[in-house]
Amino acid sequence: MNKENLNVAIVGATGAVGTKILEKLLERKFPANSIKLLASKRSAGLEISAGGQTYIVEETVPESFEGVDIAFFSAGGSISQKFAHEAVKRGTVVIDNTSAFRMDENIPLVVPEVNPQTLEQHSGIIANPNCSTIQMVAALQPIKEKFGIKRIIVSTYQAVSGAGAEAIDELDQQSTQFSERAHIKAELLPSASAERHYPIAFNAIPQIDLFDESGYTLEELKMMNETKKIFGDQEMAVTATCVRLPVVTGHSESVYIETGDENATVADIRAAMENAPGVVVQDDPSAQLYPMPLFAEGKDEVFVGRIRKDPKHPGGFHMWIVSDNLLKGAALNSVQIAEELIK
Amino acid sequence: MNKENLNVAIVGATGAVGTKILEKLLERKFPANSIKLLASKRSAGLEISAGGQTYIVEETVPESFEGVDIAFFSAGGSISQKFAHEAVKRGTVVIDNTSAFRMDENIPLVVPEVNPQTLEQHSGIIANPNCSTIQMVAALQPIKEKFGIKRIIVSTYQAVSGAGAEAIDELDQQSTQFSERAHIKAELLPSASAERHYPIAFNAIPQIDLFDESGYTLEELKMMNETKKIFGDQEMAVTATCVRLPVVTGHSESVYIETGDENATVADIRAAMENAPGVVVQDDPSAQLYPMPLFAEGKDEVFVGRIRKDPKHPGGFHMWIVSDNLLKGAALNSVQIAEELIK
Repeated sequence: MNKENLNVAIVGATGAVGTKILEKLLERKFPANSIKLLASKRSAGLEISAGGQTYIVEETVPESFEGVDIAFFSAGGSISQKFAHEAVKRGTVVIDNTSAFRMDENIPLVVPEVNPQTLEQHSGIIANPNCSTIQMVAALQPIKEKFGIKRIIVSTYQAVSGAGAEAIDELDQQSTQFSERAHIKAELLPSASAERHYPIAFNAIPQIDLFDESGYTLEELKMMNETKKIFGDQEMAVTATCVRLPVVTGHSESVYIETGDENATVADIRAAMENAPGVVVQDDPSAQLYPMPLFAEGKDEVFVGRIRKDPKHPGGFHMWIVSDNLLKGAALNSVQIAEELIK
Repeated sequence: MNKENLNVAIVGATGAVGTKILEKLLERKFPANSIKLLASKRSAGLEISAGGQTYIVEETVPESFEGVDIAFFSAGGSISQKFAHEAVKRGTVVIDNTSAFRMDENIPLVVPEVNPQTLEQHSGIIANPNCSTIQMVAALQPIKEKFGIKRIIVSTYQAVSGAGAEAIDELDQQSTQFSERAHIKAELLPSASAERHYPIAFNAIPQIDLFDESGYTLEELKMMNETKKIFGDQEMAVTATCVRLPVVTGHSESVYIETGDENATVADIRAAMENAPGVVVQDDPSAQLYPMPLFAEGKDEVFVGRIRKDPKHPGGFHMWIVSDNLLKGAALNSVQIAEELIK
């Protein structure tokens, strides 16, 4: 691929993640010759201003990808299914931020800090992992490298922006109905395609995405399967419980890991993470320093705190991992994949 | 003890839990001859109406307990430290809802569905466990009985009402500041006695109560130590991560257990819980049926759902346990202890 003066497209440019991809491309001075904003027919003609320039949104059609070097897809799985191969056919490299291709064994699933080497095998499509997976594997990678990881049990505390801009509006509206909270009308969460909707304000919903017949949700299965694929270890035991919260942006995760080193200490774990790219350790109980989603919003890093030894299980540790689900969890990671591609 | 026409007192009667104790005593027709409402000097003279009667709050002094058969204490650990022995001296049985005496090995720590037999050894004071502990052990007891439990890893999703009526007001005020959320002023949470305070609206705070030098919070240690004491098994491995959420009332818990039976199935676990007193299984993914705190508020039961087998660990199960932290987590359990006492 051409490595400078690139023609770039963003599919789903008007969405919560699409707008952040544009921001990150500009902020990080990605060597783009042109940036084309694509969306549904409904959004065509909209003007989006960023970095002192005005972009006009166009409808996504197969021909949109003529001459495009890299296209970021973030408009839902069905749009990726429909247009990604059309783009590849025209010589575009697709970085897909949906679940459409993530578990395809021929498609690399990439977090640049963890498995950049898998990029070499791509044949046109590269998958960006699920938001809750990315921040976890980015934080755990230095531990895996140094001590090995045999087991992960994670319980998530996920923000509504992971369900798109409309979910943010829903939380905003519901949050004013404190005294009427048991009677709040809900129209979107836990999932637009679910039959029943529940209020998110003043609530915690233990369902993200739909259910599989196993009793796990698709979000939980994404975390479990993607983690094993990214770490390249199908023997790793990974289980997730995914919960949606009345938080706007910033996913938090209570993570238990069993390392391969029974003598590892909290200081060892902390030291390994402190040196990892993109990871910030915020862990000082005496100063009440620990990550929180409200303060991770708008930040690029993955924040880790509350690192503790399990009282009974040697080599077992608990920790609290927080990151902006729209940035490292989505837009930033996609742009980093593109940067890695043109290195 | 006299078993009818009892003289009852509530210490901390104006608090979030104290008012619920009065409600539960009346609703369950506890055989009280009189109910005396006690609080701080500041609240003395306040009138509280309930069950068609008006009660006048009195200041708590040692002499308040003269002639009182049962006193419910829910006014903070220091008040219990100051007055519980004064009450016992006067022949009162104290049911204490603070952490003051819970880990005292001579004081029973009671969840009536789990360890009612320990009540027989009381010598004046009976401790009511921490809210997040009660709902977990009540839900897990039938599993422990049938299959054994070797290990518990719990991550909590706790409501602000566990921090008292003022925390509810704080969440109410903060919730209207959606667009200013990063700049919300906080004065109470995570703990009134902590040095730093953080907004709870649109946030998740991984600190409840203060920190121990181990890196665990006191809330986490309560769950870990109380669970072992109530289950009467010091060898059980229990670890907790406790997190405060923008939920008014209703604690939720993501719980992983390792049973002693590698052949146990989800159907076995569900059947055991369905027959347990005070436990309601709400677990049908196909109908999006699972417990949520918003709908547990005001209900007496402990709700359990999302029961799943761990994909790798035989005998390992994950579940989601929700209950009203002011009721089964506090007031109701205290009144049930009193009912058990006079059986």
